[in-house]
Parts: sequence; structure tokens; C-alpha cells
Amino acid sequence: MSLLEQVNSPADIKNLSVAELKLLAAEIRQFMIETIRENGGHLASNLGVVELTLALYYVFDFPTDKLVWDVGHQCYVHKIITGRREQFSTLRKQGGISGFPQRDESEYDAFDTGHSGTALSAATGFAAARDYKGETHEVVAVVGDGAFAGGMNFEAINALGEFKNKIIVVLNDNEMSISRNVGAFSEKFFKLRTNKRYESFKSSLERFLGKGSGASRFTKKLKDAVRFLFIPGQFFDELGLKYIGITDGHDIEKLIDILRRAKEEKYSCVVHAITQKGKGFDAAEADPEQYHGVAPFCLENGETSEKKGFSALAGDELCRLASEDERVVAVSAGMICGTGLTKFKEQFPGCVYDVGICEQQAATMSAALAVSGLKPFFAVYSTFLQRCYDQILEDICLAKTNVTLLIDRAGLNGEDGKTHQGIYDVALLRSMPGMSIMAPSTEEELREMIRLAHDGTGAYAIRYPKSAYFNPYPHTPVEYGKWQVVSAGQDIAIVTFGAMLGLTARIMEKLKERAVYPTLINARFLKPIDEEETRKLQRYKDVVVIEDNIAVGGLADALEGFFSENDVHGVNVHRFCVPDRPIAHASVEEQQRELRLDENGILERIMEICGEKRI
Amino acid sequence: MSLLEQVNSPADIKNLSVAELKLLAAEIRQFMIETIRENGGHLASNLGVVELTLALYYVFDFPTDKLVWDVGHQCYVHKIITGRREQFSTLRKQGGISGFPQRDESEYDAFDTGHSGTALSAATGFAAARDYKGETHEVVAVVGDGAFAGGMNFEAINALGEFKNKIIVVLNDNEMSISRNVGAFSEKFFKLRTNKRYESFKSSLERFLGKGSGASRFTKKLKDAVRFLFIPGQFFDELGLKYIGITDGHDIEKLIDILRRAKEEKYSCVVHAITQKGKGFDAAEADPEQYHGVAPFCLENGETSEKKGFSALAGDELCRLASEDERVVAVSAGMICGTGLTKFKEQFPGCVYDVGICEQQAATMSAALAVSGLKPFFAVYSTFLQRCYDQILEDICLAKTNVTLLIDRAGLNGEDGKTHQGIYDVALLRSMPGMSIMAPSTEEELREMIRLAHDGTGAYAIRYPKSAYFNPYPHTPVEYGKWQVVSAGQDIAIVTFGAMLGLTARIMEKLKERAVYPTLINARFLKPIDEEETRKLQRYKDVVVIEDNIAVGGLADALEGFFSENDVHGVNVHRFCVPDRPIAHASVEEQQRELRLDENGILERIMEICGEKRI
Repeated sequence: MSLLEQVNSPADIKNLSVAELKLLAAEIRQFMIETIRENGGHLASNLGVVELTLALYYVFDFPTDKLVWDVGHQCYVHKIITGRREQFSTLRKQGGISGFPQRDESEYDAFDTGHSGTALSAATGFAAARDYKGETHEVVAVVGDGAFAGGMNFEAINALGEFKNKIIVVLNDNEMSISRNVGAFSEKFFKLRTNKRYESFKSSLERFLGKGSGASRFTKKLKDAVRFLFIPGQFFDELGLKYIGITDGHDIEKLIDILRRAKEEKYSCVVHAITQKGKGFDAAEADPEQYHGVAPFCLENGETSEKKGFSALAGDELCRLASEDERVVAVSAGMICGTGLTKFKEQFPGCVYDVGICEQQAATMSAALAVSGLKPFFAVYSTFLQRCYDQILEDICLAKTNVTLLIDRAGLNGEDGKTHQGIYDVALLRSMPGMSIMAPSTEEELREMIRLAHDGTGAYAIRYPKSAYFNPYPHTPVEYGKWQVVSAGQDIAIVTFGAMLGLTARIMEKLKERAVYPTLINARFLKPIDEEETRKLQRYKDVVVIEDNIAVGGLADALEGFFSENDVHGVNVHRFCVPDRPIAHASVEEQQRELRLDENGILERIMEICGEKRI
Repeated sequence: MSLLEQVNSPADIKNLSVAELKLLAAEIRQFMIETIRENGGHLASNLGVVELTLALYYVFDFPTDKLVWDVGHQCYVHKIITGRREQFSTLRKQGGISGFPQRDESEYDAFDTGHSGTALSAATGFAAARDYKGETHEVVAVVGDGAFAGGMNFEAINALGEFKNKIIVVLNDNEMSISRNVGAFSEKFFKLRTNKRYESFKSSLERFLGKGSGASRFTKKLKDAVRFLFIPGQFFDELGLKYIGITDGHDIEKLIDILRRAKEEKYSCVVHAITQKGKGFDAAEADPEQYHGVAPFCLENGETSEKKGFSALAGDELCRLASEDERVVAVSAGMICGTGLTKFKEQFPGCVYDVGICEQQAATMSAALAVSGLKPFFAVYSTFLQRCYDQILEDICLAKTNVTLLIDRAGLNGEDGKTHQGIYDVALLRSMPGMSIMAPSTEEELREMIRLAHDGTGAYAIRYPKSAYFNPYPHTPVEYGKWQVVSAGQDIAIVTFGAMLGLTARIMEKLKERAVYPTLINARFLKPIDEEETRKLQRYKDVVVIEDNIAVGGLADALEGFFSENDVHGVNVHRFCVPDRPIAHASVEEQQRELRLDENGILERIMEICGEKRI
């Protein structure tokens, strides 16, 4: 029987020796590699926190103590040792355990995380409540160095300075978040680890001042002061967070020691653990970015075996555009690779502003780049767009700046589950004045939409999924505010866009077999909608609107809003969209099936409508 | 002829002597006090930056150099000396100049600001574009100490560390933002100004090390290092922003000197100016919070001459609730007074978490407080709610935490104009699963809604305007998800809520005079809507929906969505709402009139509908 099989709850961890913990770490690593090989998931980051997680559970008493994982996708070890080892093979699968902490899954999951940068804020809340209630447990937040640049962390640190409730911050420093980190904070951390000068300087200072009993308060202060020159930890001290020290994040003994010291501290403090993403798995160690999130061990940068995905295609078109117009620049919030900008960055390194995981900064910086006469394209995942609602509304839309948002991973998002769904973007963007929203369903459309945005003067959003069901219909040129009538039929009208158009194409074939001939419209523009074509929809009693986003603020809402404002009556709009509830992890196909947004579900529902009509 | 009358453009500033600049400062102060006495506006903050603004214009060449005002409401002096002196009496008036910088108003307004914390991000964009284009002008961002705690500033500083494009940050430190500042950063700044120990310590260090030519590189470093112990400026140095120094923000000569030094710097740097809000106006100096934003010199904390406004009423109810249930806590993002929490803070000081202007922190901290079993009420202006869209969606709604949002200043917002409209909250919140949204139209409703949220387990939002047109109809108890049928009529149905219900009450009287007897519904719940009452609306051919928010995602959308999902046909929904465009500054009444959302406009439109019906 392996050690791992004997760990059924955290209590079992506490009975192990350090040697056994090391053995357990190796077993967990092997166990994770095997499972993720099958299921996909965030491999590298979890391999990096094996020892850290064990040490945390060895030192603290969770769930009485509270543990918050920033971002959350590094919680696999945590899940394995908190009674979910046997369910681990269901990770990220429909009905299985989530790839992120979820309170409704286990009492050890203190806070639901998903997007980066929230852990410190959550920890301040837990600590404030603890002290308010007169309790005494510890609150630990584990934050990656990449996530640390996000502004929310500083808002939390500011609050800690005000409220003084103790938390322990574990800075999990692996020198990369998803891509290589960027920015001032990253530089600080990096410097610390490589700077040998501090040690030698400290020695010469000690010689200079002399050692022994003669050390006055003054020389003590002086010594403290000198640390500032070299140790970024003082940066935390400055903010009221005591910097406990730096340690090898794979040395369990040292981790236990430093975490114990943190526990003894009276005030908020920082433990700085250096870890290696992909630790213990050769391929992941060598190329952790590739293995950050793995769809069962294949590439994930927008390439598929058959065709390039929209991410890579968008990147290609930006390259072409930049070679023609030097005003074209790309802005990224730590997602160069994921949004298909790798090639662009190689070819136009001076034209890329990657601000790290700081979407607010990316949006407002884009606005200022536009005011300065450049043509910024901010490429961002749909779900992370939520982070800069205010900046897009105020600095891009209300201020009328010529920024284009390339919104990747729109629609249902599969295994990442509820926190990462790309289903809110249409509602979010349609509420903003002056925002033009497009959704391509083919490569040609994507390219023309990018060019249209480039040639325009306002705010544009182009939303597309990771991999599309490309629409097989003949292309016609994209025109501002115009839809494409793909197929003129008679019975009913189907209005859809983006990825759902490819899916609908297959449904159209089956409808034909059933002697139903709908009009099919490719609603390339979600805002403004094509008023002429919308008006023509009154020919049909039934209009089916198929969208891969929530109903609120979606295309069906837009149609009905237009009908009501223009006194168009008698059209029954049928909404095929994502319902108003959290959509849990499962494959995209499973999610579509469950929501009746798959081929069969849509077909059946259309036949129901047609059937009703014929009665 | 006064000096001020001779200043028609910034060029005129450069020709003045320091003595004349001082005189000009006094004249500008007088001029502003007189105008704001009539028009209202942000008095105290503008009195605080008179010398700073003059010094900036003396040293820099705007608009070639770029000047970004964080928040923007301290731009009055800037406007007065950039050719808008004669229009200054139209400040914040309909058709007049805006109380915030607006690019379409003047080439000197480099960036449209309104919400705090965006200036550094904008400046990084301007500086990046400048260097990209090979230009050489300066980029200056003026940021208040209160705004500085906002996370975006750190995202921008991180980006500066990465891209190295020079900007000059002027930290306008007046020790208060709207209310007294809170948090770690505030403490840093405050300490610096009061710390006399640094000076004496520096002297003893110099004695210890000896002066003169013997100073080695080592002792030089040592001296630098010691500054860390006392000077929070080193905090900036740590982040790659050179701290140029601190100065009296009302001493023009010193300001000019320090700004010139900043201009000579090669890299990004910080000028720390200590200013006094309300400087030069006795009443404002003594109580700058009162005079922060003045509606023509009266109180603005929710009190009106006749009745308490919703802010104060919400605060009162929270007090009652907290005296009964010690789980009740209030969370604020630097808006204790504005949101009516002053009394609550006095009575329950240990139950208030004011995190400064950090809405993201406030939302996520609230979620963690709720997970810990407390009952957090986060009171926030509708417009600032936009800053924490992602946190509300992810940490409150998807994570199902029991947080209540008290959304103040909902609806049209008058003189602050487009950047501060409270018209997006309904769309924003309705897109989120599990969020219950209520809108009170009377004191009783507000109180019962607060209690309902308190007794519940989910996420709640209660949205109300600053001052309401209170609904005169008899009260019936608030029930979850239920509307109130105020008046059962026959011709048409009017569905409205919140402030618009009070307005509609007056319209009902006039309709009666015209022999029109509508059914009037008080839609207390915007989510979930009352399905039973909604279904009954099919009795009417025409349903008028009156709302003080945008159409997208609003109540009319909700009704039509329900009709289409439940096969209710033949109801014509008429949308009376805020259109999809920026709504400029004017009084609320003027804005309503322009949008035909005032008494006459609504009445006329209803009569048009009734007229049509009768034809």
C-alpha cells in the first residue's frame, strides 16, 4: 500500500515524518501526472506546489485555519489530500470535482477562486471576521508571483494596513505566471533570488561597524536600513507585512520551519517560497508554459490538427496589418501565447505591451495609446474582460477612443467551469454606448472584421471562441452593421453568429431532410444590429435566435428591443441561449448537450416550434 | 484689469513673475469660490491645487506635453487658464463646460477622467506612444493620495517597470480623498510629513560617517540606505519611480523648482506635493469633506430640507439592524459619508470596513466576510459599482455568498455628467446568476428590503437614487420576488420602480384628468421579476415600462424575455428609458426633460400610445 493511499484526510499528514512526506510528495507527483495525462488540467503549477501544500497541511489546522488559493488552479494536491483522492480521476469532468476550489465541494475549500488576484482580499475578509468574532485561527493566502502584480493585491495590502487583522501570505514565486512575468514587481522578486551582492555587502558592513556588544541602537538601525538596498522583502515591510524570509519551495523541512515562524508572528507576514513549475516532470520542467493548462497533452495555442483556431488567425492578421501600418500595436494582460500573439511578438517586439495579469491597466493604457494616434488591439479572454468593465465603459466607450478588443475564448468554455465561462461578454459590451460588437464565423470574416476595426474610429469588440465550428457557407464581404443572409428560406428564420453558425450549418442539413427550409442569418454584428434585416424578420411568425452567451443583454434581447421600439408586432422570438445559472465544468459538448445547445437539442427544439406551427 | 483677465491661454502664464503668479492664484481662488457658490461643484479639491496647476503650466508646455488629472474633478484651475475662463460660469450646466476633463472640450484635456485611479495607466499609454513615435514631450499625471490606494496605480507602476517610458507623477497629498483616507499607503504618506526624526537621524548619521571627500561609495550607499527607514519615497524608488522630493504644494517657487527637476530626470519620477483641501476659503478649510462636492452650498449627505434621502435612511436601518444582530457589518470604498454610513460608523465603529477607494477589495472582502458567517452590506455608488463587476460576478454571485449591495446614486446623476451616471447597474447586475435586485420607492420599502436581504442567504442588490420622488401610495409589505399592484386600471399598464414611481404618481393624476386609467405596477423586484404579475400583463395590449437606466438589460428587456420564453404574445412593450449614448452634465430635471423622462415627456408619450390605441 502506498503512502498516498493511507492519506485520507489532512490528519494523516500530520503523523508523517519529513522523510515520509518526501516520499508522499513523489507519489502525489506521479499520481497527478498520470491523471492529468488523461484528463487535462493545470499540470505544471500543481507539480510546483506539492511540497508547499504538504508543508501547509503539516503546520496548519485546516479547515479551522483558512487556506485561500489565489487563481485556484494549483489546488490539485490540496484536493488529493483532503479526501478527494479517489474522485481525482473525475477532475474537471462532468459531475466530477472542479479544477478550482469550490466551497460546495469540501469544507477545506475556504473560498471559490478562479480569476487571479483575489486571494489577499478574501483573506482580509476572513481575518477581519475572525477577529470580529474573537476567534484565533490562522488565515493563509497562497499567491503566485504572476498574480501578484494585479492591483487588487495592493488594495488588500492597503486594507491590511488599516485593519491590522493578521494574515499569512505565501508568495509562490516561480518566476512565471502563465507566460513569463512582466513588470516592476517581477523584477524585484527575480533580483532577490539572483543577487549575491547583498551577502557580500552585509559582510563588509558588519566589518565596518564592528560586531559584538558595542552595537548601539543606531548601528542596529543602520544594519536594518542596508537591507533595503538589496532585499525586496523590505517592500513588504514598508507596507506593514513582515517579510519572514525566502526558502526553497521544494524543501519540506525548510518550508515547515518557515511556516511555523509565520504562524508565531503576531502581525501579517509574507513567506517567500521559490518553486519550480513542472517540478519532477521532465517535459513540463523544460517548457512549463506549454504544460500550464493541458488539454490531454497537446498544444493549446490556438492550433488544432485540422485548422488554425481563431486565436492564431487573429495573431496572423495583426501581423499583416502591422507590416502595413506601423500604428498597429498589441496589448496583452499576461496572455501573449493564449491569445495567439506569439508570432506578432516575435515579428514586432516593439509593438507589444504585455502588462501582466492587469486587465484594468491594459484597457486604460490602450485608450491612451489610441488617443496618441496609435491603433491598439487589446487581446483578452472573454472571462478576464470582466476585470475591466469600468475601464472599457469609461476610458474606451464614453471617452470615444479607438480601441479594438479581441475577445478570445468567447462562449462555453468547458472544463474550467463556472468561473471561466465566456458567456457574459455580449451583455457586458452591449450595455456600453458606442461599442461595436462583431462575431466572426470564418477566417475571412475575422480578417475583415479586424481590418474594419483598424480602419474605424470608435470602440470595437471582436468576439470568438478558441476553436470554431467554421461556417461552410460562401463568404460575402463584411460591411459595418450588416448581417449576412446565408440562406433564404420560408418556414422560420434562424439568426445566429460566431461558433454557433457552424453548428447551425449542420442543423440546416437535417432540417432540409425534414423538409424544413429556414432562412438563416449570420448576425455578424451584435451591435449595432442590422436594422434592415431585423425589420424583415417580421415576415416570419417564428424567429429562432441561437447564441452561446446568456440571454440577458444578448442578441434576442436586441431583436425584441428593436421590435418594441419600432412597433414591429407579432414575431415570436425563441431564445436558444445559455441560461442564467452557473455553468459547471464538463466538456463543451457536454455543456451544450445539457443546455440543449448541441446539434440534437437545437434540432429538436426547432422541430417543436415548426410542429406547433403546423398544428 | 485683473491679472486673471489677462490670462487667455497658458502662454500668458509663462510671462508672469513668481509674485504675479501668487497674485493670480489669489484671484483664481476668489473667482472659483464665487462661481461654485452659484453652480455647485468640487470646491475644496480645486482650492487645493491652484498653485500646483499654475506651476505645472509655468514649467511644462501643454498640450504638447500631456497632463492627466486623476479623477478629474480638480481640473477647474486648469480649465480657467486654458481659455475657458469666460465659460467657467457654465460649469456643470447644461450645454456648458464639464466638471471633468473632456477631450472634445479642449486640446489641453489630454484624457477624459472621472473615476479615480486611472491617470497613471493613461500616462503609461501616452508615454509608450510618445517613445514609440520617437517624440520627446513630457507626460505628467496628477494623482491624489486617496486615489493612490486604488489597485490600478500599482498595475501602472508595474507596467512602468517593464516598459521604462518616462512619466512624471505628481502626488497631490492632502491627506484625504473624499473622506479621510484609510490604509497602509495613507499611513506612509502621513508619517513622512510628520516625521521629524528623519532629519535628526540624518544629522547624527552624517556626524558618524564624517563629511567631506573621504566619503566612499560604501558610505554613500549607506546614507542612501538609511533614508529607507524614514522616507516612504523609497517605496517608489523600490518600484523604479525616482522620488524627487516633497514640497509645500502652495509655494509656487518651490513647486516650479521641483517640477523643473522632475522634467530634467531621464526616468519616471514622483513629485510629492503637500496641499490643503479648501485652501484659502475658511469654511472649506475647516471642513473640506462638507465642501468636497457642493450642491450650491448645502449639505449633501442624503439630507434634504423636507425628508431624509435614501442614503441616510439606509444608514438608519443598518443601525437598527446592527443593534439587533451583531453579524451586521458595513463595507465602504471610501464613501462612508456619501452613502449615509456616518451614524452607523459612530454607533458601531467596530462593524465598519472602509477600504478606501478600492471597490474590488470591498466586494471580495465582503464575500469572505459572508463566508465567515457575518452579514456584510457593501454601500457603493452605482457608478463605482462598475469597478468591481468581476468580483461581484465571481466572488458574490457564482460563489453564492450572502452579500448585500446598497447601491446609492442610481439613475440619472445630474451635473457630474457622463462618467458618473448611475444607469448601468441594472444591466450589470441582471447579467449575474443568483443576484436579486430590488428598487425601493419609499422609506418603508427600503427598510423592508434591507431586512429581507439580511434574512436571506444569497446575493442582493438594493438600488436607489440620492433623493427620491417618494411614491405616495399605501404601503404593502415587501415580499421576495413580488411586485405591488398600486392601482388597477384598464387602458394600459405602466410598470415602473424606484424613483420613477414617485414621478409616475404625478403623471397618474394627469392621466386621470384625461380619462385614462392605467394599471400601475411598482416593480419592486427587477430580478427575479414577478412572473405572476408579468403573465397578467397580457391582458393589456400596451405595457409602458418606465425606468431610469439604459434599455439593455433593463426591466423592459426582462419582460420581453419572459414573454418570449413563456409564449406570451401580442403585448406591445413601450420602453421609456435612458438611451444608449453618453448622457452629458445638466441638472437631473434637464436630463429627464431632454430624454422625455420627465413628467410632461412621459405624459405626452403615454397619450400618444393611448391615442394610437383609440384610432
